[in-house]
Amino acid sequence: MATPAFDLTKLPTRAPADFHKDDTLRQLERIKNELVDWQMRLYAENRRSVLVVLQGMDASGKDGLIRKVFSGLNPQGVAVHSFKEPSKDELAHDFLWRIHARTPAKGMIHVFNRSHYEDVLITRVLGLVNATEARRRFARINDFEQLLREAGTTVLKFYLHVSEEEQRARLLERVQDATKHWKYEAGDEEKARQWPQYRAVYEDVFEHCSPAACPWHIVPADQNWYKAYFVAAALRDALAGMNPQYPASKAERPE
Amino acid sequence: MATPAFDLTKLPTRAPADFHKDDTLRQLERIKNELVDWQMRLYAENRRSVLVVLQGMDASGKDGLIRKVFSGLNPQGVAVHSFKEPSKDELAHDFLWRIHARTPAKGMIHVFNRSHYEDVLITRVLGLVNATEARRRFARINDFEQLLREAGTTVLKFYLHVSEEEQRARLLERVQDATKHWKYEAGDEEKARQWPQYRAVYEDVFEHCSPAACPWHIVPADQNWYKAYFVAAALRDALAGMNPQYPASKAERPE
Repeated sequence: MATPAFDLTKLPTRAPADFHKDDTLRQLERIKNELVDWQMRLYAENRRSVLVVLQGMDASGKDGLIRKVFSGLNPQGVAVHSFKEPSKDELAHDFLWRIHARTPAKGMIHVFNRSHYEDVLITRVLGLVNATEARRRFARINDFEQLLREAGTTVLKFYLHVSEEEQRARLLERVQDATKHWKYEAGDEEKARQWPQYRAVYEDVFEHCSPAACPWHIVPADQNWYKAYFVAAALRDALAGMNPQYPASKAERPE
Repeated sequence: MATPAFDLTKLPTRAPADFHKDDTLRQLERIKNELVDWQMRLYAENRRSVLVVLQGMDASGKDGLIRKVFSGLNPQGVAVHSFKEPSKDELAHDFLWRIHARTPAKGMIHVFNRSHYEDVLITRVLGLVNATEARRRFARINDFEQLLREAGTTVLKFYLHVSEEEQRARLLERVQDATKHWKYEAGDEEKARQWPQYRAVYEDVFEHCSPAACPWHIVPADQNWYKAYFVAAALRDALAGMNPQYPASKAERPE
């Protein structure tokens, strides 16, 4: 595969120098309070929705980020979907079939923990999908996200960008911390070795699936506190831009 | 319909005298912290699940209760399903079809905001289901919940018990509070008048669908603070009884 124009190693994996942990965590708490209000408005308005797509290599901290940013919101208006290895039934359909079924209804915020992008990521690293097929899928993904946007869904895509060193340290921690043992898998060492391969296929995604209306956010993710702040702030900004309003009465609220 | 043996009007709609608001809210915060820990364990263990069924008349505060008790938990392990008027497709199946599709997978806590019980409640008040058909459905519901329990799901059923007076006051508030306008519906006055009819069909449910292994909890619900405390404490007790544990490694965690 040709070297993509997008160079992930040039992008920071750590917070900018003027961000400090305690300060940023205080800001995060303020933003989370704002999110609670925006989410209630989005739900009451019942006209538009938000889809948060989370991607990142193993141990980039997707689970922890979901806990830090989205706990506190009213779970009635939030759903998290984790996409793992597809089932036989899912494999019997096109690759967007199981994804489409889990997109947010009006009023809802859905979080995808991994997503349709796995079909152009791990599948390429495993050699199940070649470059030609990947190009085809990039086009279908862009079409699909446009369909969602035209139906009133704001799509926010975040890549949790961890350095090769930080990933290795975290995979090691799974062995050492009793509350993290259950995440340890026999393949973890191999995954750490595959960082450069994942980097290459991610770069290809960022080059082909970042239209101006729906870009990827590359989140410096070596520090959990900054990563959570970054995603929460981006979500808050998106909701503020949508500016959902309480309808005057249920009669004015679309069912 | 014969008067059921179960008499809802004999059960309190307010907190016991020795409960005070500030104290109880502090206890609630402590319990919510315990729930965070139990939920992480349940999710990590990935062997059993919890289903919380919430029922109550209109304006009994189901939405607010979900917000108060379940926000704070990791949304990755929690899903809320609201059952409204069934769709054509749903009506083309048996009444448990849409419900069964939304039961929790292992590791998950699901909250049903309304549930399969609507099929023996509002449907009876509207005259769509008669007493004979209701009896048949009670049996099917008990069978269904037993199936879930045998598969490792703890089923917790809560009825939010508001007095006729409190319900009327809350429906009125929807007209007066700008952030609640959107919940107001033209039929709200009629719903308030139907309190006695709903009481009768609820009593019939409590009499027939409270096996020892899976009883209804009648929650005094005129005060929001006590109601949230009651449900949170019952959920905590149930989880503590299940006592889920972190597996030693992913290999020991059932997929």
